[in-house]
Amino acid sequence: RVNEMNGSGNLMDFLDEPIPDVGMYEDFHTIDWLREKSRDTDRHRKITSRSKESIWEFVKSLLDAWSGWVVMLLIGLLSGTLAGVIDLAVDWMTDLKEGVCLFAFWYSHEQCCWTSNETTFADRDKCPQWQKWAELMTGHTESAGAYVLNYFLYVLWALFFSFLAVSLVRVFAPYACGSGIPEIKTILSGFIIRGYLGKWTLLVKTVTLVLVVSSGLSLGKEGPLVHVACCCGNLFCSLFSKYSKNEGKRREVLSAAAAAGVSVAFGAPIGGVLFSLEEVSYYFPLKTLWRSFFAALVAAFTLRSINPFGNNRLVLFYVEYHTPWYMMTRLGRYPVLEVIAVTGITAILAFPNPYTRRSTSQLISELFNDCGALESSQLCDYINNPNMSRPEDDIPDRPAGPGVYSALWQLALALIFKMVITIFTFGMKIPSGLFIPSMAVGAIAGRIMGIAVEQMAYHHHDWIIFKNWCRPGADCVTPGLYAMVGAAACLGGVTRMTVSLVVIMFELTGGLEYIVPLMAAAVTSKWVADAFGKESIYEAHIRLNGYPYLDQDEFTHRTLATDVMRPRRNEPPLAVLTQDSTTVEDVETLIKETDYNGFPVVVSRESERLIGFVQRRDLTLAIRNARQKQDGVVSSSVVYFTEEPPCLAASHPQPLKLRRILNLSPFTVTDHTPMETVVDIFRKLGLRQCLVTRSGRLLGIITKKDVLRHMAQMTNQDPESIMFN
Amino acid sequence: RVNEMNGSGNLMDFLDEPIPDVGMYEDFHTIDWLREKSRDTDRHRKITSRSKESIWEFVKSLLDAWSGWVVMLLIGLLSGTLAGVIDLAVDWMTDLKEGVCLFAFWYSHEQCCWTSNETTFADRDKCPQWQKWAELMTGHTESAGAYVLNYFLYVLWALFFSFLAVSLVRVFAPYACGSGIPEIKTILSGFIIRGYLGKWTLLVKTVTLVLVVSSGLSLGKEGPLVHVACCCGNLFCSLFSKYSKNEGKRREVLSAAAAAGVSVAFGAPIGGVLFSLEEVSYYFPLKTLWRSFFAALVAAFTLRSINPFGNNRLVLFYVEYHTPWYMMTRLGRYPVLEVIAVTGITAILAFPNPYTRRSTSQLISELFNDCGALESSQLCDYINNPNMSRPEDDIPDRPAGPGVYSALWQLALALIFKMVITIFTFGMKIPSGLFIPSMAVGAIAGRIMGIAVEQMAYHHHDWIIFKNWCRPGADCVTPGLYAMVGAAACLGGVTRMTVSLVVIMFELTGGLEYIVPLMAAAVTSKWVADAFGKESIYEAHIRLNGYPYLDQDEFTHRTLATDVMRPRRNEPPLAVLTQDSTTVEDVETLIKETDYNGFPVVVSRESERLIGFVQRRDLTLAIRNARQKQDGVVSSSVVYFTEEPPCLAASHPQPLKLRRILNLSPFTVTDHTPMETVVDIFRKLGLRQCLVTRSGRLLGIITKKDVLRHMAQMTNQDPESIMFN
Repeated sequence: RVNEMNGSGNLMDFLDEPIPDVGMYEDFHTIDWLREKSRDTDRHRKITSRSKESIWEFVKSLLDAWSGWVVMLLIGLLSGTLAGVIDLAVDWMTDLKEGVCLFAFWYSHEQCCWTSNETTFADRDKCPQWQKWAELMTGHTESAGAYVLNYFLYVLWALFFSFLAVSLVRVFAPYACGSGIPEIKTILSGFIIRGYLGKWTLLVKTVTLVLVVSSGLSLGKEGPLVHVACCCGNLFCSLFSKYSKNEGKRREVLSAAAAAGVSVAFGAPIGGVLFSLEEVSYYFPLKTLWRSFFAALVAAFTLRSINPFGNNRLVLFYVEYHTPWYMMTRLGRYPVLEVIAVTGITAILAFPNPYTRRSTSQLISELFNDCGALESSQLCDYINNPNMSRPEDDIPDRPAGPGVYSALWQLALALIFKMVITIFTFGMKIPSGLFIPSMAVGAIAGRIMGIAVEQMAYHHHDWIIFKNWCRPGADCVTPGLYAMVGAAACLGGVTRMTVSLVVIMFELTGGLEYIVPLMAAAVTSKWVADAFGKESIYEAHIRLNGYPYLDQDEFTHRTLATDVMRPRRNEPPLAVLTQDSTTVEDVETLIKETDYNGFPVVVSRESERLIGFVQRRDLTLAIRNARQKQDGVVSSSVVYFTEEPPCLAASHPQPLKLRRILNLSPFTVTDHTPMETVVDIFRKLGLRQCLVTRSGRLLGIITKKDVLRHMAQMTNQDPESIMFN
Repeated sequence: RVNEMNGSGNLMDFLDEPIPDVGMYEDFHTIDWLREKSRDTDRHRKITSRSKESIWEFVKSLLDAWSGWVVMLLIGLLSGTLAGVIDLAVDWMTDLKEGVCLFAFWYSHEQCCWTSNETTFADRDKCPQWQKWAELMTGHTESAGAYVLNYFLYVLWALFFSFLAVSLVRVFAPYACGSGIPEIKTILSGFIIRGYLGKWTLLVKTVTLVLVVSSGLSLGKEGPLVHVACCCGNLFCSLFSKYSKNEGKRREVLSAAAAAGVSVAFGAPIGGVLFSLEEVSYYFPLKTLWRSFFAALVAAFTLRSINPFGNNRLVLFYVEYHTPWYMMTRLGRYPVLEVIAVTGITAILAFPNPYTRRSTSQLISELFNDCGALESSQLCDYINNPNMSRPEDDIPDRPAGPGVYSALWQLALALIFKMVITIFTFGMKIPSGLFIPSMAVGAIAGRIMGIAVEQMAYHHHDWIIFKNWCRPGADCVTPGLYAMVGAAACLGGVTRMTVSLVVIMFELTGGLEYIVPLMAAAVTSKWVADAFGKESIYEAHIRLNGYPYLDQDEFTHRTLATDVMRPRRNEPPLAVLTQDSTTVEDVETLIKETDYNGFPVVVSRESERLIGFVQRRDLTLAIRNARQKQDGVVSSSVVYFTEEPPCLAASHPQPLKLRRILNLSPFTVTDHTPMETVVDIFRKLGLRQCLVTRSGRLLGIITKKDVLRHMAQMTNQDPESIMFN
């Protein structure tokens, strides 16, 4: 090992002949962003300098430069395809609960009757090829017995789907449950959770998502689709060493994948980019903005090509389920039983009320619609003025008919039911999203209020509040708009989105002219919700799980680095290594007796002058490697971190050079640095740890965990709730 | 001065009894973001602790907490009002070039004829109350003499307006010229340009903007409106000490003000927020995102209330001028003459061509429009098939008539004229924007190409490229969409916007369904433009002006902090102060003989152990202050930075304590730190300087200017082009 002795370059020394696995991270640990970035720049420099050597290397460097866009393209294509397939599968399986297509069982009700030529356009829902189960089994169609049999089979299918889903998640991929957004937020902030974005999670989450949505549970597929898209992103990262070997670069791809996920969930490509920026991502440079934009575009385009007749998501409204609370129930200990019970209750209670029976997206769509003259919905049962001869789209306010009043009661009950059942559904161990239930609750409340205001305006247009803007016989109140604003406000309160919320809402509804009320609703709901607590549902989840997430809130307490660093007063001194006087045995003892993630290296214990920092993991690997492969390395060998080996007596065994695993530019702050600056540095530079000095002497160390615990303590929370490093 | 001797708190020591002006910055210097942030946190803590003392203090703390939103509200109101007033004034003065309203000279042509009752809706452009100048003076209306007189007066008014504008700018506010966006970008990155956002600039820019737009020059008001909004932001900052005394907090407000500016310029509130985020801002936390959103909302709403009949900006298309090049002309030395000459040439050359004669926003609007069956524009002169009996909005591709062919020629000439004249216009010393000329150029090119493709598709629908998607007699090519995409692509190439571009375009046109082609155009134009050079027009301007702006480009060269720091090899050692052995005279000599912005303080010259950093400006002020007010301070007094005074012989004069101006937490990196990490730290933390150490010894210093010069050197640019600190 000659080059061990004449390591000339300071940086390259670190790179050539790498010890396997050095520089990787353990599971449930935090990455060091600066180090990842620095490693990527080294890799980039190598490729650039090699590219001048031959044409092949030049082509390779070009491929490397474009690999980011290629990954984005692949993510867009795959996540768009998966979203399309999920949509088609959900359509088919939802209909399977009711009946089957005789000539091709893989057709949904709609496809079955479209393909059949015997139906007219008006009757396209009814065709002889599509048979309900009771009809198929008994031949009867309209009897009470057939009704009960259909209902029984419907519930049975629902229970079967949800049972299958919860079992698959339990057995094959426990990480596939929930919406996944809190964990993705944590991962993007620099935390490692191995397998969370793995192939199994992708497969199981896709399949079970279809199952749970088809079972009719009160949940949505938006959050889970973000998780699915991030799994796709992680999958394609493994194709390029640029991304697979660098945790920082990988997270840039994942941020863009999250945008693609929202893009296909709502058909809102720009909303997706903004969602990723505002809600999910941690480190979001402009380059990632452009790439997210591209991935979201490809994903939306792919989805549109696959499922063009589906639910024309682009522009038209289409939505699903998502919940605002997290609650532990006693049933939580028996996840399968819990899912079966909640599915059963949902199916049985939802049936009698027309507004809970239909799919939530249909419900929201109906609530958003304004009543035209020809509308047949119960919500549009107004008493028309027979003398009226206005154009269809300019109908004045009218008195409500009996249908509207009964609809109001049913909506009120639906509101209570949705709020309660969604709370229970979201905590279950199945893939479940939060957007649609929130929007449904808001839309119901908004529509009820809209109708109330409309009727007040009609019956009392002499009241001061109506006098100035509402002449009798004019169309001054649009209950559908109230529903839309209500949905936006409720979703905003749950997720605390602002700009992305408004963009998603108008990409969803095509209602560009309602941008001002939507913006007002978003800002108001954020203010009101913030008065109750600053955390969004995702942040609350992150805190409950004890993940080490450093949020953007400002730290305003008056503490200094010296108050937070370890060792505290009365604690044993900091465990350090010296640059050229520690032996292999000393190092091994230190590793055995402490559980620190790394050790500062100083010139000598007396001077306390810092020269670098070495990771525990790298140290373990390097010593194990040296003991196996390098002759003469024994327990009493001196370990040195300097360029030149120390002067030792001839009797000493060969020393071991470890400069290559030494980080020569550890981050330091002085003990007088205010903690708000330290927090800022940790947040913006994505540090894992930071050393504390005074007048050039090493005093202590602050890790990300120390920072988070200190922050928890300052806000009177339990510092022990921060669990990982 | 008792408390000088027993300073107990480390931080408060810095704050109580402040020396006037300490902690401020000089003009054309860079701020230290971390220090500003730390100062704001101190202020915040003081208010919070005081708020428990009395109800009045509690109310004050609430007011302080809400002052951010109040400032946003005020900015929204004022910038919306100013934009509305500018619109109205431009309408009036543009018409003043042609004629005058007899019964009320302050009415524009449109208002004059609206107010008159004698006109029908169809004839609303012609009413006896509105008289052209020739008619008013000579009584003739249609003669050749009247035509020439009108034309002459038109050019005269234009010359008068532009002369007035350039003189006002020259005499009262030189900072009011140009679009202002490059300077605002630089200011937001932490640079001080006093007066750039001052009251005079606001006033003069508002007035001259009206003048130059009315004069018919090829320029737009979008960029200048961003500058105007930022001036409003700066104005309202001075109402609250929270913002006026903290350069960091002030920049948060300015970022939001920029969003409000774009919001009123285009009627695109969300586009404004994204423009501020993507193009202008440097430090953009989520809190600023929400506030920008609010400011943009209020501004758009105010504008809409003031000018509701105006150009219904929200949703409908409305635009102005912006240019893609910067060119020094010889005329540049004579700014007034230059403006007069360009105005004259613009007026004379633009007149003969109908596409350059009308206002650019009208031109763009016409180019975006698709040809309906009843369209009377020359661009819609197609040969209709008489047998056709289709609905109005589904017109198949038709052969072009003679009008379309002559329109094509005129458009081609207009394209050349616009490109050339805009290049000259943008460099002049008047307020001028860049958006609309770019869009006009792109829209003309797009429309020409659209018509070409349409005619090819009509005449050759057997060609392979058309075969699969264009049946004969179908409407497969929409030339208006080509114009829209062309405008987006051209604007994207000039400014390198992506997401904000698409959002602005669809807020502008209401064309939510064209999101995919617009996104594709934005990404493609960014790729193509980046192949020619990575800089946007704003960044190019910043570079030309030598402003110290640290952009987001990645630094990939393999240099270390030791290569960039000063002193270099062969240079005299670093100028430092010692903690307790320098005299007042030594300090004064050091200040006189060097021009450094600050000096590190070390324990002693031998140990080189760093204890802090002191700003030159603060040092000068503190010593001047002490010499004036503190007895016993003479040239031979020892200056000390420690808590306790040094032990001195009784014969020594009284020592001077300067700990309160010492920054105890200066930022340090080791000499081995790679430059890409240093650049990242400067960018993300907004540092002004950073000290370099090795094994706890102070080696040197790196300032922002050093970093920028090194970056310029590495990309083979002249390092001397970076001019400010």
